[in-house]
Amino acid sequence: MSTQFFHQDERFVRDFGVLSQFGATENGGVHRLAGSAADGEQRRWFTELLESEGFRVEFDQVGNQFGLLELAAGAPYVVVGSHLDSQPTAGKYDGAYGVLAAAHAAFRLAAEWRSTGAVPQYNLAVVNWFNEEGARFKPSMMGSSVYTGKMAATAALAVQDPDGVTVSEALQSIGCMGSGTGPTAAYCAEIHIEQGRSMERDGVTIGLVDSNWAANKYEFVVHGEQSHTGSTVIADRKDALLGASMLVVAAREIADRFPGVLHTSVGQLNVYPNSPVVVPSRVNLLLDLRSADEAVLAEADQLLHDRMLEIEQAADVRIEKGSSHCWPVMPYQPEGVDLAEKAAVDLGLSYRKVKTLAGHDSTNMKDIVPTVMLFVPSVEGISHNEHEYTRDEDIVAGLHMLTDVVRRLCDGELDARNS
Amino acid sequence: MSTQFFHQDERFVRDFGVLSQFGATENGGVHRLAGSAADGEQRRWFTELLESEGFRVEFDQVGNQFGLLELAAGAPYVVVGSHLDSQPTAGKYDGAYGVLAAAHAAFRLAAEWRSTGAVPQYNLAVVNWFNEEGARFKPSMMGSSVYTGKMAATAALAVQDPDGVTVSEALQSIGCMGSGTGPTAAYCAEIHIEQGRSMERDGVTIGLVDSNWAANKYEFVVHGEQSHTGSTVIADRKDALLGASMLVVAAREIADRFPGVLHTSVGQLNVYPNSPVVVPSRVNLLLDLRSADEAVLAEADQLLHDRMLEIEQAADVRIEKGSSHCWPVMPYQPEGVDLAEKAAVDLGLSYRKVKTLAGHDSTNMKDIVPTVMLFVPSVEGISHNEHEYTRDEDIVAGLHMLTDVVRRLCDGELDARNS
Repeated sequence: MSTQFFHQDERFVRDFGVLSQFGATENGGVHRLAGSAADGEQRRWFTELLESEGFRVEFDQVGNQFGLLELAAGAPYVVVGSHLDSQPTAGKYDGAYGVLAAAHAAFRLAAEWRSTGAVPQYNLAVVNWFNEEGARFKPSMMGSSVYTGKMAATAALAVQDPDGVTVSEALQSIGCMGSGTGPTAAYCAEIHIEQGRSMERDGVTIGLVDSNWAANKYEFVVHGEQSHTGSTVIADRKDALLGASMLVVAAREIADRFPGVLHTSVGQLNVYPNSPVVVPSRVNLLLDLRSADEAVLAEADQLLHDRMLEIEQAADVRIEKGSSHCWPVMPYQPEGVDLAEKAAVDLGLSYRKVKTLAGHDSTNMKDIVPTVMLFVPSVEGISHNEHEYTRDEDIVAGLHMLTDVVRRLCDGELDARNS
Repeated sequence: MSTQFFHQDERFVRDFGVLSQFGATENGGVHRLAGSAADGEQRRWFTELLESEGFRVEFDQVGNQFGLLELAAGAPYVVVGSHLDSQPTAGKYDGAYGVLAAAHAAFRLAAEWRSTGAVPQYNLAVVNWFNEEGARFKPSMMGSSVYTGKMAATAALAVQDPDGVTVSEALQSIGCMGSGTGPTAAYCAEIHIEQGRSMERDGVTIGLVDSNWAANKYEFVVHGEQSHTGSTVIADRKDALLGASMLVVAAREIADRFPGVLHTSVGQLNVYPNSPVVVPSRVNLLLDLRSADEAVLAEADQLLHDRMLEIEQAADVRIEKGSSHCWPVMPYQPEGVDLAEKAAVDLGLSYRKVKTLAGHDSTNMKDIVPTVMLFVPSVEGISHNEHEYTRDEDIVAGLHMLTDVVRRLCDGELDARNS
């Protein structure tokens, strides 16, 4: 590694420290909900960083932030990035690492092309997708869903947070409401922390993501009847919170029947009227089941639905299934995995193929263009937590890896395979 | 019953219909949280009603509304009333019936004394206690707690609702912030709907409340750790919502071990961060256990605490016990129950002794003065629900009963027994 490269790595780690100050929490994490003041501040900083390196910054119709380098006139773009928004009291690596690594990879390639005079096959776009987390505005992966045509921009802009603020209002308030549909993509790449502990356990530095887990995500509404917590006899109660609690417990019991291969959870649960002395009449909750094995998922789903009928009887409630969002195991393009493997071999980085359990913007992007998704290890698998951590040597190795992958994509290395 | 009395009963039912329009909901209930605009409107209407009958209206330091009739110069007051605030999307009888019945009973007695020239031993105060429900501002029974010296006025005024609005600000916004400590009480009476179905089952019109159930009310905080609902392996999760849900289920299982003699419930539960893809790190919930049998309550409480230890292990969470509020079985003064029994016999109304499972302002008042608490039946025991209902003939019978009890209290019928 050249001295210059070593300095560039130091600068990357330093820039990551600066980025982590936006919305920093007392316990070393960040709190940067999509469209919040902290999100606006980091976006302004990121614009300045990109512009200082000669990239032109533009926002599209749904607040996706692009840093554009156009060297091949009229050619489409290799789009590389992730998201800067976070969950509440979350870790500083999730998303943010991938955005800054994309920027630094792009800066290195731009410098290379300047110094050699080479012209790549494709132009280069660094991206910070809007609202990947879905914590404030549902659904998650909003910006990349609009970009890939899976969600209408008008529908996304009208979504309200719990205080009634729309996406449109939030984007305007932080000065990030743009127009148009952004640059046209030819290929996509993203790097992210694993958020699990399998790579750390196996001692590999780079994960080549070859597919995502299948998932069934459900919104349930448990309907009971308001009554008095003191005076209503137990036999007369239709307690929506009891029914909802039985559902939360059932989800875990089902996961325990498929150890290691099924993940279930309820992350959000809201009670009405939520008053100390009123038996709740309504609980809304979001429950999801995930597995890499579609047969396991189907069996677990059937168990859940069987349990729902039992719970309706036992708690004297009615369980309504609201919106659902289900997807199968879907591969990333194998030629992209092969390209990433070559890069890892050339760089001498340890690697193995992994699956992503979480959703990412790249899971949207892979449905419209060949997409390479890379992981670096998460210490103890901790994520969506202020103590999320990835070692500096791993975030730097990931940056080298991403730089090489993006260089190959810009050079058209996948074109032959796709022609 | 005289024709005039019949007309007065009709007027009472009509006035109750007018009162029920404040904060009326589509399904025939009311939504009048303490200190809300709807509460302000009904309080202004109630002031006008009292003043039109020659009562002087004053608000004390915590917004308790008094309608005063001073006939025995310098004597203390028989304080009679209940509360006009409601739970969210609640029934129109809870509290409101007792306030309007108190006013109409007082109007009848005032007319009697005017026509006969009799001077009662005690003065008469109709009361609308502030914030009995505790739905918006905790704790419940706030106004009567301050009046009876159980809570400092400064503490009550500083309590904030979930939006950060204080009691003081809410009272000022509806023009009900008074001063002073209200009239001095000699005796107290309150009438209320039963909110259970025991009187309807037994076919009695009047309940003579002789004691309250014992209760243990706890605030629990379940502590887990934030993690990713997709990627965190099940064995690594410390899911606060799973622990909380197991606690909700355990509370019901414990109630089922003491059928009919133990009531348990969780009415309020809040999840943090409550995001679809984050395993919750914290859940705050309010759990209560109630019984007329203190030995049952003690045994149930021990079972709950045993279960808590098991849940901490099973869900890998920590359960913190926050504030608690426990009270034993406490009798209403027996001489008050006797006086009410005589009134029921004289009026030819069917009655039996009952216990109150819910808390009432009278449960505070009985600790400072002899207090008579009366019930009328609730159809199907439905309460804290828009479909709460008590038949017109029962609310009228209750009004007759309350009028007679208040007359006896004003005439000093309990003085001899207490001297």
